[in-house]
Amino acid sequence: MPKETTVRIKEDFKEKNILSLTQFDIPSLLKLFSVADHMQLLSLNSSPVDILKGTITTLLFYEPSSRTFGSFAAAIKRLGGATVDIVNPQLNSSVAKGETLVDTIRTFEAYSDLIIMRHPEKGAAQQAAKAAFFIPIINAGDGIGEHPTQALLDLYTIYKKFGRLDNLTGLFAGDLLNGRTVHSLLKGLSLFKNNTIYLLSPQLLSLPSLEITRLKKCGLTIKEIRSEKEIPPQANFWYWTRVQKERFKDLEEYEKVKKSFVVTQTLLKKYAGKEMILMHPLPRLDEIESSIDADLRSVYLRSQVRNGMYIRMALVSLVLNKIT
Amino acid sequence: MPKETTVRIKEDFKEKNILSLTQFDIPSLLKLFSVADHMQLLSLNSSPVDILKGTITTLLFYEPSSRTFGSFAAAIKRLGGATVDIVNPQLNSSVAKGETLVDTIRTFEAYSDLIIMRHPEKGAAQQAAKAAFFIPIINAGDGIGEHPTQALLDLYTIYKKFGRLDNLTGLFAGDLLNGRTVHSLLKGLSLFKNNTIYLLSPQLLSLPSLEITRLKKCGLTIKEIRSEKEIPPQANFWYWTRVQKERFKDLEEYEKVKKSFVVTQTLLKKYAGKEMILMHPLPRLDEIESSIDADLRSVYLRSQVRNGMYIRMALVSLVLNKIT
Amino acid sequence: MPKETTVRIKEDFKEKNILSLTQFDIPSLLKLFSVADHMQLLSLNSSPVDILKGTITTLLFYEPSSRTFGSFAAAIKRLGGATVDIVNPQLNSSVAKGETLVDTIRTFEAYSDLIIMRHPEKGAAQQAAKAAFFIPIINAGDGIGEHPTQALLDLYTIYKKFGRLDNLTGLFAGDLLNGRTVHSLLKGLSLFKNNTIYLLSPQLLSLPSLEITRLKKCGLTIKEIRSEKEIPPQANFWYWTRVQKERFKDLEEYEKVKKSFVVTQTLLKKYAGKEMILMHPLPRLDEIESSIDADLRSVYLRSQVRNGMYIRMALVSLVLNKIT
Repeated sequence: MPKETTVRIKEDFKEKNILSLTQFDIPSLLKLFSVADHMQLLSLNSSPVDILKGTITTLLFYEPSSRTFGSFAAAIKRLGGATVDIVNPQLNSSVAKGETLVDTIRTFEAYSDLIIMRHPEKGAAQQAAKAAFFIPIINAGDGIGEHPTQALLDLYTIYKKFGRLDNLTGLFAGDLLNGRTVHSLLKGLSLFKNNTIYLLSPQLLSLPSLEITRLKKCGLTIKEIRSEKEIPPQANFWYWTRVQKERFKDLEEYEKVKKSFVVTQTLLKKYAGKEMILMHPLPRLDEIESSIDADLRSVYLRSQVRNGMYIRMALVSLVLNKIT
Repeated sequence: MPKETTVRIKEDFKEKNILSLTQFDIPSLLKLFSVADHMQLLSLNSSPVDILKGTITTLLFYEPSSRTFGSFAAAIKRLGGATVDIVNPQLNSSVAKGETLVDTIRTFEAYSDLIIMRHPEKGAAQQAAKAAFFIPIINAGDGIGEHPTQALLDLYTIYKKFGRLDNLTGLFAGDLLNGRTVHSLLKGLSLFKNNTIYLLSPQLLSLPSLEITRLKKCGLTIKEIRSEKEIPPQANFWYWTRVQKERFKDLEEYEKVKKSFVVTQTLLKKYAGKEMILMHPLPRLDEIESSIDADLRSVYLRSQVRNGMYIRMALVSLVLNKIT
Repeated sequence: MPKETTVRIKEDFKEKNILSLTQFDIPSLLKLFSVADHMQLLSLNSSPVDILKGTITTLLFYEPSSRTFGSFAAAIKRLGGATVDIVNPQLNSSVAKGETLVDTIRTFEAYSDLIIMRHPEKGAAQQAAKAAFFIPIINAGDGIGEHPTQALLDLYTIYKKFGRLDNLTGLFAGDLLNGRTVHSLLKGLSLFKNNTIYLLSPQLLSLPSLEITRLKKCGLTIKEIRSEKEIPPQANFWYWTRVQKERFKDLEEYEKVKKSFVVTQTLLKKYAGKEMILMHPLPRLDEIESSIDADLRSVYLRSQVRNGMYIRMALVSLVLNKIT
């Protein structure tokens, strides 16, 4: 009975599990983005929408992530759908008593049309998809594994700004070793032609050379730089991430590098073009000065977050076959 | 003002508290089952249903039970109703400050049309029903007390399979001393004529002889057996429960018996009929081998769970007088 | 971009933040009360209402307060609106990692039409309102700061009973030093002409003389009394609050006073008029004997709680401009 779990989408989302960005080819991405555009229009229009009316989605969050939870919940409810919210089921009796993930999934699939799961362990989404007999699973992050909707919203944000995902120049800065968002977005960009990516990170937090080789093979042009002075003026986007103190054994080393990895007004003025966008996967602490929030090129707390909701509205509607 | 709380239903559910299986006679059970059948049809049909639209049900869960919570939440939302979800109110300020259950119930009845309460203490549901001035209470489990919707879904599962609740042969196996589901289901079956029940448990976890006497008086034929070899081939259902290590003082004793209380392929092949169903109240750990899940006679993670939702859809609709 | 946060309402609630009772003048209060009356009618009528259909409100509760949470959630859902429930976000990853309140607010405003926030720190609601670019914030209590909807429901309860908020006599008893509800209600009453307030409290828990002076300046007549024997027989309402043990360093002192601050049948019989109402901000412990709940003059677990829901229904509808 267990079905194949990670199926290529090929423009047909109906009842498919959404577990990984690798399921998407270019036409599927473009289809999703076009539905997301439509969702934005629906959201800005003030009349209620009933596309998901009558559907039940279980939000099964084994770790509370209020941002992702809120984004999915709002996405579903904006379309008239209902959610069953299960947060931290592992603290509850059944799961605490040792119930397997398989049994938990089969229980909740009896109640719902879709399960959106967040789990701290890599591979959990795959396991859940294997367990479900009848309904699809959307992976809302499985530990250091994947978080496909985050990658999709990042790609969509770039696509919406520039009208394309090829022939772009981007800068990834900060911690390029840890954090699945950097890896996922790079993988997504490598699907498209003629993209050039600059990588700027402390030596210790570089993108692994194995991954660089793989991305180059897929067609990305990759340039590692060691100073902000080498940031290309024509970059279309900066994807900024946090350099965390706890990654360093040598605190002196940390103190030395940390200042180079903060976006300041000066840095923007010197190195950023007028039409670029500044992205961040959030939460943002002090690696982007708060005065920069008001700069219209900063999208991290604006369109990037809203795009996440539109992408999720589109994805849920497509998977539940309520829009085609 | 406080009304009588445990009133016999007599086929009229309107605004009655649902606290105990003892409120049900045969015609009331059959009426509920017929509405549950209707609810299944509504659920399988893809068009949204608005039977409970405009109603507010408070899910007041003093212990988080994600299975029961999810089942009630989905039941209500599938019918277009809304829930106010209050989980662990005892950790919140008012209740933590010492507010009585009476005051909490009166607060939430001001907001809602129905309160569904889960509580760790026996008798809490009765207390809540006494406190409420205007709205009904459904007991979603009060500690070692009652959990009427669990018993109702078990009875409904048997009824749906065999078209009757009399003239049946059943096996109850595992821990027959603890766990309210066994006691409730036996009580329910004793309402009907000509049922024969086999009890198979470790000596230590037998059904109390007082209860056996009482059930016999009600008309059940009861046979205690001490080995799986005595399982009757004509049993219509097996109701399997977990033998928990922590019930044994003597671990050697536990190790001796535990293997006899696991459903294996061999056991099924030898002793189970082709038309029987294998039930379990869940959570299931290793007392049923996972390979058996695929056997169509296994209903515990399939129709038994779904039936729980249909029964709850029916019960809430009847109590709120939205269906007759 | 940050807008002015505490704007006077002047009968136009549309998209205004509701942070403090000081935003209300008499016509605005009366407008709100008239809409709340309408909401009561809608609630008692059994047909579903869709005034808030298509709207998303985030309930962002940094401390779980099941009463206030439940009241807002029910208010919104009764009108067909949807909520995204975020309880204890500070325990989640983003906020735990140090995300600022500003960033959290901007994230949730991307998903919703309104944020209703509860926070343990005074001033947090102001901060949130400053952070939000596009949507209004309703303060559901910010520590020792304000809790405007509590004050509004208290005023509404008195207004509904007597048809006016001027020419009233009221008694405030118990702890008049701590607890924002007393201060807010007094402030509200001082807007109206010719009100006389009696204050009865242990010396240690008196209303600060500075505040008395201020209230007198606003036109309230204030009389401090030291014994229940001085309670005026013509009082229209008693607003009773708890004298908490932990406020006293000297336990002997506490034991001496505590009995004088309990509402008993005897006290009511001796000092309360027939048409007065007995109010309490809840939770109530033993400072009002439970036998008094049945007295129709006791409104604390009846109309006072329900009025909270009607006021919140009215406020959300007005702020979201769904009713005018």
